Amino acid sequence: MLSVEDNEMLTRVGPRTPMGELFRRFWLPALVTSELPDRDGPPVRIRLLGEDLVAFRDSSGRVGIIGARCPHRLAPLFFGRNEEGGLRCAYHGWKFDVGGTCLDMPNEPPERQFKQRITQTAYPTREQGGVIWVYMGPSAVMPDKIPQFEWVQAPEGHQFVAKWLQRTNWCQGMEGEIDTSHISFLHSMKEVYNPEALVAQSPSVLEKAALDGAPRLTLLETPYGFSYGSRRRYEDRYYWRVTRWLFPMYSLIPGTAHGGAGRCWVPVDDEHTFTFHYQCRDDRPFNDAEIAQFSEGGGFPPRMERTKYVLRDGGIIDTWVPTANLENDYLIDRQMQRDVNFTGIWGVNEQDRSLQEGMGPIVDRTKEHLGTADIAVLSARRLLLNMAKKLMQGDEPTLPQDAAAYNLRPLEVLDPEDDFRSILEKYDATLGAAAF
Amino acid sequence: MLSVEDNEMLTRVGPRTPMGELFRRFWLPALVTSELPDRDGPPVRIRLLGEDLVAFRDSSGRVGIIGARCPHRLAPLFFGRNEEGGLRCAYHGWKFDVGGTCLDMPNEPPERQFKQRITQTAYPTREQGGVIWVYMGPSAVMPDKIPQFEWVQAPEGHQFVAKWLQRTNWCQGMEGEIDTSHISFLHSMKEVYNPEALVAQSPSVLEKAALDGAPRLTLLETPYGFSYGSRRRYEDRYYWRVTRWLFPMYSLIPGTAHGGAGRCWVPVDDEHTFTFHYQCRDDRPFNDAEIAQFSEGGGFPPRMERTKYVLRDGGIIDTWVPTANLENDYLIDRQMQRDVNFTGIWGVNEQDRSLQEGMGPIVDRTKEHLGTADIAVLSARRLLLNMAKKLMQGDEPTLPQDAAAYNLRPLEVLDPEDDFRSILEKYDATLGAAAF
Amino acid sequence: MLSVEDNEMLTRVGPRTPMGELFRRFWLPALVTSELPDRDGPPVRIRLLGEDLVAFRDSSGRVGIIGARCPHRLAPLFFGRNEEGGLRCAYHGWKFDVGGTCLDMPNEPPERQFKQRITQTAYPTREQGGVIWVYMGPSAVMPDKIPQFEWVQAPEGHQFVAKWLQRTNWCQGMEGEIDTSHISFLHSMKEVYNPEALVAQSPSVLEKAALDGAPRLTLLETPYGFSYGSRRRYEDRYYWRVTRWLFPMYSLIPGTAHGGAGRCWVPVDDEHTFTFHYQCRDDRPFNDAEIAQFSEGGGFPPRMERTKYVLRDGGIIDTWVPTANLENDYLIDRQMQRDVNFTGIWGVNEQDRSLQEGMGPIVDRTKEHLGTADIAVLSARRLLLNMAKKLMQGDEPTLPQDAAAYNLRPLEVLDPEDDFRSILEKYDATLGAAAF
Repeated sequence: MLSVEDNEMLTRVGPRTPMGELFRRFWLPALVTSELPDRDGPPVRIRLLGEDLVAFRDSSGRVGIIGARCPHRLAPLFFGRNEEGGLRCAYHGWKFDVGGTCLDMPNEPPERQFKQRITQTAYPTREQGGVIWVYMGPSAVMPDKIPQFEWVQAPEGHQFVAKWLQRTNWCQGMEGEIDTSHISFLHSMKEVYNPEALVAQSPSVLEKAALDGAPRLTLLETPYGFSYGSRRRYEDRYYWRVTRWLFPMYSLIPGTAHGGAGRCWVPVDDEHTFTFHYQCRDDRPFNDAEIAQFSEGGGFPPRMERTKYVLRDGGIIDTWVPTANLENDYLIDRQMQRDVNFTGIWGVNEQDRSLQEGMGPIVDRTKEHLGTADIAVLSARRLLLNMAKKLMQGDEPTLPQDAAAYNLRPLEVLDPEDDFRSILEKYDATLGAAAF
Repeated sequence: MLSVEDNEMLTRVGPRTPMGELFRRFWLPALVTSELPDRDGPPVRIRLLGEDLVAFRDSSGRVGIIGARCPHRLAPLFFGRNEEGGLRCAYHGWKFDVGGTCLDMPNEPPERQFKQRITQTAYPTREQGGVIWVYMGPSAVMPDKIPQFEWVQAPEGHQFVAKWLQRTNWCQGMEGEIDTSHISFLHSMKEVYNPEALVAQSPSVLEKAALDGAPRLTLLETPYGFSYGSRRRYEDRYYWRVTRWLFPMYSLIPGTAHGGAGRCWVPVDDEHTFTFHYQCRDDRPFNDAEIAQFSEGGGFPPRMERTKYVLRDGGIIDTWVPTANLENDYLIDRQMQRDVNFTGIWGVNEQDRSLQEGMGPIVDRTKEHLGTADIAVLSARRLLLNMAKKLMQGDEPTLPQDAAAYNLRPLEVLDPEDDFRSILEKYDATLGAAAF
Repeated sequence: MLSVEDNEMLTRVGPRTPMGELFRRFWLPALVTSELPDRDGPPVRIRLLGEDLVAFRDSSGRVGIIGARCPHRLAPLFFGRNEEGGLRCAYHGWKFDVGGTCLDMPNEPPERQFKQRITQTAYPTREQGGVIWVYMGPSAVMPDKIPQFEWVQAPEGHQFVAKWLQRTNWCQGMEGEIDTSHISFLHSMKEVYNPEALVAQSPSVLEKAALDGAPRLTLLETPYGFSYGSRRRYEDRYYWRVTRWLFPMYSLIPGTAHGGAGRCWVPVDDEHTFTFHYQCRDDRPFNDAEIAQFSEGGGFPPRMERTKYVLRDGGIIDTWVPTANLENDYLIDRQMQRDVNFTGIWGVNEQDRSLQEGMGPIVDRTKEHLGTADIAVLSARRLLLNMAKKLMQGDEPTLPQDAAAYNLRPLEVLDPEDDFRSILEKYDATLGAAAF
């Protein structure tokens, strides 16, 4: 439960908002590489932190993320020509490179040197791990490196990355991600009510989680955010899941063989989010069959299609949009809900979004009733609000400069140990240098 | 013609508005029984008086109407599981019964007794006359009984009830209902302009009404609202129609053989209304052929389909939505308007809605020009505003406690008598105990 | 670049706004004649200067443009009956003639003489040049004559007029019209980058314009607005284009054989515009083949369909709506953009609207960066704001009374002369009486 003021601060991300400024201290995922496959190819409309932008890959392969509108008369650059080292506005031919320099202004007499006085908003970009990253903050504090997640550093093909639109504030998605107890319900199968039947089998993650719906959580704050262990009874041992939450909106989730997975909740604006899903394996690249399977949905990403999308305020972006959505009730099947799974909704992300988007674009956190199961949600909010408030007072965060801090793994084990710190120490070797 | 302030007071029905509080003193129709046919069946999303609610029939057949969002994290309960005596949220498994008691909270340790501190908004319900009724006001003044209309008390099958969405404020629909002069025009056939041709026939209600477009109205205020008689010349006698208007939004309309009919205008929110149509016969149940005929449209209900519907503010409800609507100009046929009927629009309710919805969600009553034909409209407004203002001053209305006052009938007769009180006295025996 | 205040003043056109009042001093195009083909035919919903209106042609052929809602209870007159000299409301039969007089009020007793006290808003209309004109201002200053453009005065059939909806403020369209330099880019073919190839051919207007993307503009203010010459180098001479801009929103564009063409940007409301395109030839009527060709699109009008249209605030009008639009990205074809023309968008108006509508309904002129090429845009804004401010101080404009001032032509010539005034003097004879 938050005050009205804190809920506002947590969720508003436009220019000059406290949380918007905090996000502008970090490199952020902006597009997946496949959105800009070709040099001089079609530009892509995006919105990030409430700013309308256009992304393009220039003739030499560099990616530009610049203001969506030509500074001349504010025509949309999306309709422009991407050619010969820059994006040229279709209205009067003004042309900008990836750095925002005006390369050409053919409708003005050169002797007036008007061109030299015009620059377009342009944000630095990087490309690694299948993702195009952007930095939208002050250049004086721009981190040298993007976050060095394992999946970012991994050789090409060892990671799988997908992106889609969620129609909520970024925080609503992130909170769902670090809320461990919901997986015992939202994502469980019908057999949650017959645990004995499950024990006879080799249970999957969700089945193990379903056996104990009230896990004990231990949360340790760290420089990067926090690490929490959720302990569920499982036969004569414990089923431990260790999840990382990293500023400002990353999660590392256990349960994927051979490496971590997680999501990044990148604010499009106050009411929309780009969800980036990543998955990584340390032993070999994903093969074609695996990638084909990811695209079929069921887990992450959801079933989705590439399309233009009109945002609530009339703005337009190009993105993937899930097939199951608010308009079709996430294709809920009440018979399936009776016989097969908890929700009658197919697909893990579909299940998440049915509730997160169903809360409305920005949930009213003054009306919540949070319990002990919500400790991670509460901690993330508090840590974010504190860091944003400090920044408002001029106290720049140091974490963005520490790219190595992001080199972490999640963890899941079956172990009789009941203490979280002991679990972390025991399995430290597999957890990377900065385990906690 | 109203002041801006009175129009606001008349039309706003959310929590803590004067008219919203007045409506919260009465039992209100919320759903028709057929919306919740099965125990443990799918829940239904509704909105009433601006509050988002979810209705469900539990394992023992009781109907719950509770807050639409789980009090935990405000996820929509619509996606939940209706099972074993309550509705269980799909997010973390919290479960509520029809009274709002939290029956289960499986993601929290029982020893914390968090469950005992949580209750969900829940409103008392009753089920009678083919309708599920709800009371949304203070329990201290909850009436013991729902309004004892003849159609409510009649044995099962003697009444026919239907419900659909009207896309206006509740008052706009109600005003159309008690506006007797419009039927001579809006609902008339082309022959309105050739009354002589009609007299040769056995005229129907509408034809009789069409013969005299300027009826004389006499209105008598009563404890339940008012009764008005409209007197039209018809050959050597008068065609008398006696209509009842009952607080806060009921009408009893003459003209249906063997019993009354009417509509209830239940506010969904300020800009949408559930229209409930009821019809009753005192001699026998409606037969299948009659019910089939009702469903074909033409009178009430309109042609319609069951669907989810997105309200103007993005809220979602499950309801019947008329086929002819604002988007398709109510399927107006200008050739039919020339040759067949006054409007070129097929169906009585379609004709009504074309104008009522065409006025916009909340008509600006400061710009009207009302005449003598509008006396019933003016009276209903005045009586409602007075009762709402008294309630604001702490003066609770007594009518809601008097369920028997609703046991009334409308009337139509051909009679040479020209005085309304004499007509009422003469036909008193058929009018129920509290004729006026 | 404008201040926030001036941008507001320039773009707001509702009743009692400064620019709205200025527009209400001029006769304005409201419909094309073909929208009301038949006496007693279906009425047409329009909105002009933010006022909802209904247009109809009565039994004697006169055109009425009256308030959209019946003064009684504000029901939409669109659903009414157009018959026997007036439009009769479908609700209670009130009937109004083209002048707003209430001809009949059949639901009220005649002896009350209520009818005599009711009048409907009604605006004077004229019909000439294929257009129905309306005057929405004070009757004391109503100009005797509509603007005497050549195309207005021309015999029937010598002009071609079309109308469609543009989804921007009126000024955004008008500014695009008088912005000569954009045609070298937005409307150019791929060969803009290979001018030598063009010189060998007989170049069209657009090709000639494409050869010099930075034309020199000379603008002369006149009583009617301004005349500007744009001078482009073309071999050893100049390609001169002389464009007229006339208060409050007319343009006369050179380049059409045998007479002028242009557009009128009539404000529907602050966020929508009726674009009227006119074209005229002085030698003979347009033949069927020419008219058929116009309807195929490519130039003006765009490809479009007749339909009802729901405006952003929910209001409804009947109009032509272009096929290529914001929702389908104006059917941009990136392959065509690479190989054929500058934009990959088919059709001159489609190209214009892609950028003008892409700017949003009301562009934020505080963020522009205007150069020397924008002198006409700057002048029109300044002249309009000055005239509107004077009117606010009670200084009525005299131009509306001078219908003859509109009898002008545009001009295009190839000539070695480099001075605009000399060009105007040289070609004066063909330019009408009030050339500048």
